[in-house]
Amino acid sequence: MRAVDIITKKRGFRGATPAALTQEEISFFINGYVAGDIPDYQMSALLMAIYFNGMSFDETAALTSTMLHSGNTMDLAGISGTFVDKHSTGGVGDKISLPLAPIVAACGVKVPMMSGRALGHTGGTLDKLESMNGYKTGLNIDSFRSYISQTGFAMTGQTKEIVPADRLMYALRDVTGTVESVPLITASILSKKVAEGAEALVFDVKCGSGAFMKTPEQAEELAKSLVGTGTSMDKKVIALITNMNTPLGTMVGNFLEIEETLAILEGRGPADTTELTLQLAAWMLVLGGKAQTKEEGLQKAQEAVKSGKAKELFLENVRLQGGNPEQVLAECGTRRSKYTTEITAVQDGFIQNIDAYKVGIAGVTLGVGRNKTTDAVCPDAGVILEKKTGDSVKKGDVIMRVYGKDTECLAPAAELLKNALAYSQEPAAQQPLILKEITAKDI
Amino acid sequence: MRAVDIITKKRGFRGATPAALTQEEISFFINGYVAGDIPDYQMSALLMAIYFNGMSFDETAALTSTMLHSGNTMDLAGISGTFVDKHSTGGVGDKISLPLAPIVAACGVKVPMMSGRALGHTGGTLDKLESMNGYKTGLNIDSFRSYISQTGFAMTGQTKEIVPADRLMYALRDVTGTVESVPLITASILSKKVAEGAEALVFDVKCGSGAFMKTPEQAEELAKSLVGTGTSMDKKVIALITNMNTPLGTMVGNFLEIEETLAILEGRGPADTTELTLQLAAWMLVLGGKAQTKEEGLQKAQEAVKSGKAKELFLENVRLQGGNPEQVLAECGTRRSKYTTEITAVQDGFIQNIDAYKVGIAGVTLGVGRNKTTDAVCPDAGVILEKKTGDSVKKGDVIMRVYGKDTECLAPAAELLKNALAYSQEPAAQQPLILKEITAKDI
Repeated sequence: MRAVDIITKKRGFRGATPAALTQEEISFFINGYVAGDIPDYQMSALLMAIYFNGMSFDETAALTSTMLHSGNTMDLAGISGTFVDKHSTGGVGDKISLPLAPIVAACGVKVPMMSGRALGHTGGTLDKLESMNGYKTGLNIDSFRSYISQTGFAMTGQTKEIVPADRLMYALRDVTGTVESVPLITASILSKKVAEGAEALVFDVKCGSGAFMKTPEQAEELAKSLVGTGTSMDKKVIALITNMNTPLGTMVGNFLEIEETLAILEGRGPADTTELTLQLAAWMLVLGGKAQTKEEGLQKAQEAVKSGKAKELFLENVRLQGGNPEQVLAECGTRRSKYTTEITAVQDGFIQNIDAYKVGIAGVTLGVGRNKTTDAVCPDAGVILEKKTGDSVKKGDVIMRVYGKDTECLAPAAELLKNALAYSQEPAAQQPLILKEITAKDI
Repeated sequence: MRAVDIITKKRGFRGATPAALTQEEISFFINGYVAGDIPDYQMSALLMAIYFNGMSFDETAALTSTMLHSGNTMDLAGISGTFVDKHSTGGVGDKISLPLAPIVAACGVKVPMMSGRALGHTGGTLDKLESMNGYKTGLNIDSFRSYISQTGFAMTGQTKEIVPADRLMYALRDVTGTVESVPLITASILSKKVAEGAEALVFDVKCGSGAFMKTPEQAEELAKSLVGTGTSMDKKVIALITNMNTPLGTMVGNFLEIEETLAILEGRGPADTTELTLQLAAWMLVLGGKAQTKEEGLQKAQEAVKSGKAKELFLENVRLQGGNPEQVLAECGTRRSKYTTEITAVQDGFIQNIDAYKVGIAGVTLGVGRNKTTDAVCPDAGVILEKKTGDSVKKGDVIMRVYGKDTECLAPAAELLKNALAYSQEPAAQQPLILKEITAKDI
């Protein structure tokens, strides 16, 4: 078997549909690459050929399964229950993982949650968690297993031992214009999630200005690829396509999003984040075998909030992972950077939209997120949205309260945030939060 | 400017036509690559994106011109006349360069001819020339200039200093499945030809089983790309698309093709090689300003043969480049390897076709050509076609005389040659030799 022949097969000849790569060909190429026998320049040519010609779900499944076995996998054997995880493709104000894990765990499904950090305009669950003093996200396998056993969930970052093929391939894709390939995105996400122990997965595929997928068509293509490939790997997978044209909830930041998490867990969260959390929870309960239908799942998730069980588990997890629950509760409403400004309405009317992407970029400027993986984030920076899309405003009303890492960042961030606002004279038609549900039967 | 942005621009987004790269972007990328600042893995991604999305003639011209300036160019200044070269995309029995250069030179056009070696099933002009004892093809620039001044043409190989970008890129294309890209082939060929001093170019784009381009559509695409790109670079370029389903002429070999060259120059060559030589010569005379029309060019070329001037120049070139003209003439008909066999007709009827590709592969087996660039060739090996496509045969008639580098190669070569033969009961319709002429006005 020769690498160039595999590249040429995937490339095909212009005008003709190329034949699918076999599991053997994919294993030969990926394993050879990880071992250093196949050079970067052949991998990048293959990646570009995949960008253009795509991959069938079976091919993507073969790629995923080769990648996931390129390193260690998380051994959760011995812990009872079904492991269900959620993955979001990244958005602005997307703190859903934080309330979701304890709600689902409260209903008896195990959630081994591995999250990422903020990068570019999107926030990161690990950065939000670490805004709580003492909270540790770099768990070793023993702690991860132990915390899941105790509270039903645990929150950690990805370890270097998990899916080295993805780390190598992603670094190469980043510099060769091959990031935006649906099968490559699918294999990257799924290989990590399955290696991390997930047996069933709910995907939140974001769609809109603040999302990686800008159009409903792109988002649906990715959603179908995730569900189709997962199904081909005998995993239970569903995907929701959700609106990311405007930030989720009323808080965009790090500790600010912990506050909103507690609000959701206390049943007083914003309508959008509450709805999305419960919908995702309902599906996780269905996949985890704790509900027959989404409606039953919804009811159980709501009950876990109402009873206080979910909040209790959240605080218990904070304690287990090194934080101080009492301090977190006491700090709510107080963790605001002293470098602050406001964005006020420049006219009477309605908020037609608050652009998620621009708010996300403003967040990076304020210190919520980062441009480079080596940048530090500011736990107390962020934006509070006093008004949301569709709200009426009078000129001079405060629309956003802005908190920055320093004085200098406030003016450029405020400029971005002003540009994120669009006004209208009539209330804009409300965009649905959940655009579509994709299940195995839609493939 | 960043390499990844240039790759992404060329890649475009699926479904949308990507914008053309600018001259600056192409220069940045190619020069950066040659300088070692842009790594192989980014170049291979760009090459694959070009494979899929193609390039406009202007883009290909910008690529060609950047490549040609990546190293030294041949300085022919001070030699009077227009420099016109011919390039063939490679075939079997294609010795046309050998009689063509002296015919055209005899009519007053300067021919700075740089040729290649046999590789795979196609023969190489340099190997044929070197089958003449003493003949040297590795000329330095002073000798090259001097011989052109004396006889109007000279025959040499490519030097390492010419177009280093192409050498690097070709090596990468070879292992990344990006050889078969029309704009990349075009830039590779044109950059070398222009760097070597050609001011006008006639292309012989081969089409058929023994050619790189198997179908008329592929050949026409390449022909148009060569003419369109050359025109965009203000060069006079025309292309003939010619039949390579069956070997050219009656001799396939090294010294054997020198013999056929002399036959053509003496006006007693086979019909097909004679016709193609004269047609290409006519066009070279038109481009070189020595004929107003192809018809006038044809007449002058025929006259150069009839008068003996072309043969005289050929022999003078042999002398200049280190060979012995008298010895060459004396050896005609005698340089036959002693390891020999015959292929005879297995039935009465007509030769429907002699497959060029299979004869070419048999040639490699016999020692005419090579599989790897480091293999040696045998000057006295080859195949003499006693019958050509369309000829009638009786069972037992000799169709081919076969000469090998050793005894062992004869049986496998004979097997290939037998498989190259197709018989018919009726004479097959004669395929035209010249399928199409592509000039600037066809673009």
